[in-house]
Amino acid sequence: MTPSAPAYRRLSVEERRSQLLEAALSLFAHRAPEEVSLDDVAEAAGVSRPLVYRYFPGGKQQLYEAALRSAADDLRHCFDEPHEGPLPDRLSRALDRYLAFVVQHDAGFSALLQGGSVVETSRTTAIVDGVRRAAAEHILSHLRVTDPGPRLRMTVRTWITAVEAASLIWIDEDKQPAVDELRDWLVEQFFAMLMVTARRDAQTEALVAGLAAADG
Amino acid sequence: MTPSAPAYRRLSVEERRSQLLEAALSLFAHRAPEEVSLDDVAEAAGVSRPLVYRYFPGGKQQLYEAALRSAADDLRHCFDEPHEGPLPDRLSRALDRYLAFVVQHDAGFSALLQGGSVVETSRTTAIVDGVRRAAAEHILSHLRVTDPGPRLRMTVRTWITAVEAASLIWIDEDKQPAVDELRDWLVEQFFAMLMVTARRDAQTEALVAGLAAADG
Repeated sequence: MTPSAPAYRRLSVEERRSQLLEAALSLFAHRAPEEVSLDDVAEAAGVSRPLVYRYFPGGKQQLYEAALRSAADDLRHCFDEPHEGPLPDRLSRALDRYLAFVVQHDAGFSALLQGGSVVETSRTTAIVDGVRRAAAEHILSHLRVTDPGPRLRMTVRTWITAVEAASLIWIDEDKQPAVDELRDWLVEQFFAMLMVTARRDAQTEALVAGLAAADG
Repeated sequence: MTPSAPAYRRLSVEERRSQLLEAALSLFAHRAPEEVSLDDVAEAAGVSRPLVYRYFPGGKQQLYEAALRSAADDLRHCFDEPHEGPLPDRLSRALDRYLAFVVQHDAGFSALLQGGSVVETSRTTAIVDGVRRAAAEHILSHLRVTDPGPRLRMTVRTWITAVEAASLIWIDEDKQPAVDELRDWLVEQFFAMLMVTARRDAQTEALVAGLAAADG
């Protein structure tokens, strides 16, 4: 396919970089990283291979990490939710954004999180872990907890990986059930997990009581 | 440390192989795979490096995969639980075995599941996924479900990854709280997750009702 825009029109360095990252991300979304070549990226962006190398002299690994970092930034924004209104609604809105991201990145999301990819390194793992940590901090701030104990921390972190796992399983199960049902199920799982923890942790117990009072 | 047994006493091929795998597993348990060399394995087993190569001509990658496969077999056995007695007790016993495995393999368990290791490939990922699938099948058989719908499948699979994630977090949190509390928390999370799913899935609803009847 020939791109309809002139391939070499002058873009600023920043614009060109974004364009290349976008092309890379859309390729990584539909194919495993090991099946994407720099030629593919050049073709998708309508530029030459040397131009891709000028921006990413480290080749595919560097491009992949930059694309991953850009995707991680997008993911972080999913959790940027104002501290207003009922907590389940806030969680639902954050999950709507997260699941939209999952749908958009599909295979790329799976390849990254399932591991075993040739471009996966301790650096890429650290990027993904950074997103998980940021998500946990966001949730704790919405719960207005500043000093979470190990039980509450474990509950929040385990729920975050459950969300991730459920999203992967959902892609694997041909996106059944519908996305809205998945979102509601995940929100309810969050509160169910908190309730279990509340049975043996005073901090979580007080938190759950406070949430119930705010609800009523 | 010099091994007390004579290093080259005649072992059968099978015995020698097991001995090398055991040495490798104990090294992988305490260090990331990329920090373990074949010399380390030879030294730990009290044999020469060429002997290690005779058994594992593919070098470290082959040894790592064989060790991983052997660990995966052990993990599968964690879920071999007779179909007798109350379900929460069966789940507790399986989790006791699983958590003992986690404690035994510690850093090796983390390195493997967190990914980003140089020895991780699509083959090692497939081995780990095979264990997850086997665990899901075991649980469904204990629930006496032969034809699970997508919602029940997702619940069981999500819980399994939650167990895995919680175990990693637990190691990361210096094994707080105590292992028995973690086990009970995981068992309760399982039933809490099922209850949430039962609200929107007739199959899970019937299952939960059946479990409650068996309990009373």
